Amino acid sequence: MKRTKIKAIKKKVGEKLKILGWIHTIRDLGSIRFLILRDISGIVQVVILKKNSTAYKATSGLSQESVVEIIGKAKEEKQAPGGVEVEAAEVKVLSKSDPELPIPIAEKTKGETSQEKRMDWRWLDLRKPKKQLIFKVWTEMERAMREYFLKHDFLQIHSPKLMSAPSESGAELFELPYFKRKAYLAQSPQFYKQMAMAAGFEKVFEIGPVFRAEPSFTSRHSTEFTGYDFEISFIESHEDVMREAEQMLAYVIQAVKDKYGRAIAKEYQREIQVPTVPFPRVTMQEAKKILKEQKVKQEKSGDLNPGEEKALSNYFLKEKKHEFVFVTEYPVGIRPFYHMRDEKRPKITKSFDLLWNGIEIATGSQREHRYEVLKKQAEENNIGGESIQHYLKFFKYGCPPHGGIGMGPARMLMKLLKLASVRESSFVYRGVKRITP
Amino acid sequence: MKRTKIKAIKKKVGEKLKILGWIHTIRDLGSIRFLILRDISGIVQVVILKKNSTAYKATSGLSQESVVEIIGKAKEEKQAPGGVEVEAAEVKVLSKSDPELPIPIAEKTKGETSQEKRMDWRWLDLRKPKKQLIFKVWTEMERAMREYFLKHDFLQIHSPKLMSAPSESGAELFELPYFKRKAYLAQSPQFYKQMAMAAGFEKVFEIGPVFRAEPSFTSRHSTEFTGYDFEISFIESHEDVMREAEQMLAYVIQAVKDKYGRAIAKEYQREIQVPTVPFPRVTMQEAKKILKEQKVKQEKSGDLNPGEEKALSNYFLKEKKHEFVFVTEYPVGIRPFYHMRDEKRPKITKSFDLLWNGIEIATGSQREHRYEVLKKQAEENNIGGESIQHYLKFFKYGCPPHGGIGMGPARMLMKLLKLASVRESSFVYRGVKRITP
Repeated sequence: MKRTKIKAIKKKVGEKLKILGWIHTIRDLGSIRFLILRDISGIVQVVILKKNSTAYKATSGLSQESVVEIIGKAKEEKQAPGGVEVEAAEVKVLSKSDPELPIPIAEKTKGETSQEKRMDWRWLDLRKPKKQLIFKVWTEMERAMREYFLKHDFLQIHSPKLMSAPSESGAELFELPYFKRKAYLAQSPQFYKQMAMAAGFEKVFEIGPVFRAEPSFTSRHSTEFTGYDFEISFIESHEDVMREAEQMLAYVIQAVKDKYGRAIAKEYQREIQVPTVPFPRVTMQEAKKILKEQKVKQEKSGDLNPGEEKALSNYFLKEKKHEFVFVTEYPVGIRPFYHMRDEKRPKITKSFDLLWNGIEIATGSQREHRYEVLKKQAEENNIGGESIQHYLKFFKYGCPPHGGIGMGPARMLMKLLKLASVRESSFVYRGVKRITP
Repeated sequence: MKRTKIKAIKKKVGEKLKILGWIHTIRDLGSIRFLILRDISGIVQVVILKKNSTAYKATSGLSQESVVEIIGKAKEEKQAPGGVEVEAAEVKVLSKSDPELPIPIAEKTKGETSQEKRMDWRWLDLRKPKKQLIFKVWTEMERAMREYFLKHDFLQIHSPKLMSAPSESGAELFELPYFKRKAYLAQSPQFYKQMAMAAGFEKVFEIGPVFRAEPSFTSRHSTEFTGYDFEISFIESHEDVMREAEQMLAYVIQAVKDKYGRAIAKEYQREIQVPTVPFPRVTMQEAKKILKEQKVKQEKSGDLNPGEEKALSNYFLKEKKHEFVFVTEYPVGIRPFYHMRDEKRPKITKSFDLLWNGIEIATGSQREHRYEVLKKQAEENNIGGESIQHYLKFFKYGCPPHGGIGMGPARMLMKLLKLASVRESSFVYRGVKRITP
């Protein structure tokens, strides 16, 4: 008999069917036993009558979270969740659970188990339908993003994560022995996206892990996370990158809302806002002025600390009713050497950050594609050696003007679902003190 | 003016348009100059008349592979490639190429530049339309694969590549310092796919890098490559995994043929065969018997070396007209401890390899999900320690029967396009002696 997913049972009332899943809860009333069975699609009540002695025996002493196969008849039952239940004819136990569950799954306790403990037992925490929804949304977010890219003639690349030299700065770098030499884990696919531009791929995207040996313990940082990156050629300025990014994001958020808007509202009390395009833009100078007017404590000029990012975002949410804001005109000093500089104001880069509800979810820029200029900018930043010579060669044999962006989907999901930390939105989080499971 | 892609010019004959790209070739006849311009979509002839002195001057002394913007009028011209040409009105040079190209791009030389040299200058090699086609096909292959997965209710995961313990065997492992401890690069997402099964995700796929510190120099091996992995729950046996894999592959190859079949035939003289389902299956024992009949030199019983794989594949191509064959019933000794064993023949695993036109492109199995059995199998294989205890815990609190597969897209593409090596199908190849660019 073919399996019926739990959410499809209500269309099969009166039929005999097979369901598979985990025992969410058990309630024993003596002559009758109620199981709540859970699969990836939902939960359903299963009734086991004592008079069906085989099925009754099979479920006697069975622990919560054991995995079972049940064959039975679907019936309407107004008292049951979803309005249907299954009266079990046969029960087969596929996997027994240890009765001592390290963290509760079905129970609604006041306040969840501590995050550290839930992360130790990540796969049990992820059994909660509310947590599974995060990865259903992730899957849809990525589907829609790729659909956008493919509609717009992007090619996909998978670039190497083992590199002979740092791609960003020397700090925050994992180093490892590589046969008779050294290798580094890629901090971003930056060099290879640019290589693809030099190769004439014109528009590329990459989805893959990036690594940062950052001794950071905030809710926004991981030592390894998934990066969403794209790079496009023949741009006029970083404005073209911003335009592509905002269109893509609006497309993706619309798709997520269409598919999971109701589930997200129910589980996370979050009404998804599809952003209007264009997103608001603010220069660094204007941003600082706004923050001053708002009496926000400022750390230094030319950059925003997390508190300032939050305040600025709040301002735009309040004043422009927009969850997003691009901050532009970052000064040269705090940006990588490969960011292009403004033609008329050489201390300003043609770069931007994108804030979403208070945190930075993306950084982008037009890249410097002129060999001589790029070489000079690298030297100014004391970046030299064999490694950079290799990178510089990309620009020597004809390279179109180009730019791109790197985004963090774990942060995006954190904002999309109002989660407390990227520890919750990453399938398996990696931090300074966390390398298991 | 909006850019027109080169392949779209033929629909715009008579119109003034803007094109962008690389100078593929230049031919100077004195009063008239012919450029072949190349973008990601194709090539077109551009005519520059001496009487248009600005455009003529802009292209004087310009090297091949420089990047230009051209505004001009599209005209029919039977002699030109594609039957159209553009008469330039304005030419703007966006990026000049060094006139000394390290490897030829447009020229059809007898025999290509050596592979090593082409890999040193990978981004120039990738400018060749024939090479770009590889990554157009890769993009479509992955699009179609994901479409198949999403149609069949899979969720996507991104699992960590930094692990506290080896996921497969201790050999071929990259190790690195991780703050105050050690970490290893994932040789496969195996543990995390299984964790997702224990988490009740039921069906997952993952696309991402895997790392093998393998001192191997064959055309099939890399130290880092993209892996396509899936894992499914509630299976009856490894046969369910094989069924899912063959359906997916047939779907993907059909999609590639539909989109790029003609281009592949033209560039690679390869007629794509969409495989019929089911693929042929052969047990190890039968395979050895066939090889003996074919008088193929056999190395050892219970396993196939590359020569035997090739001969076996050839046999099935000849006898069954099928490019694929599943080899089943591998013995316990050569398979990982987590492969489930046959209920009646405990020395046989419920696993398989998939051969495509002579090489192994995938390995899969039903996994052992019973805690006590798995623990025993780990001990038999002398696999112990803290790390494995962590993994074993996945199976302690209810885990459905499950199985999965790991595939290598670079090998798949090698077979799809009849390429000589994964060095050609990887965007940027990594090997023992190759960590640049």
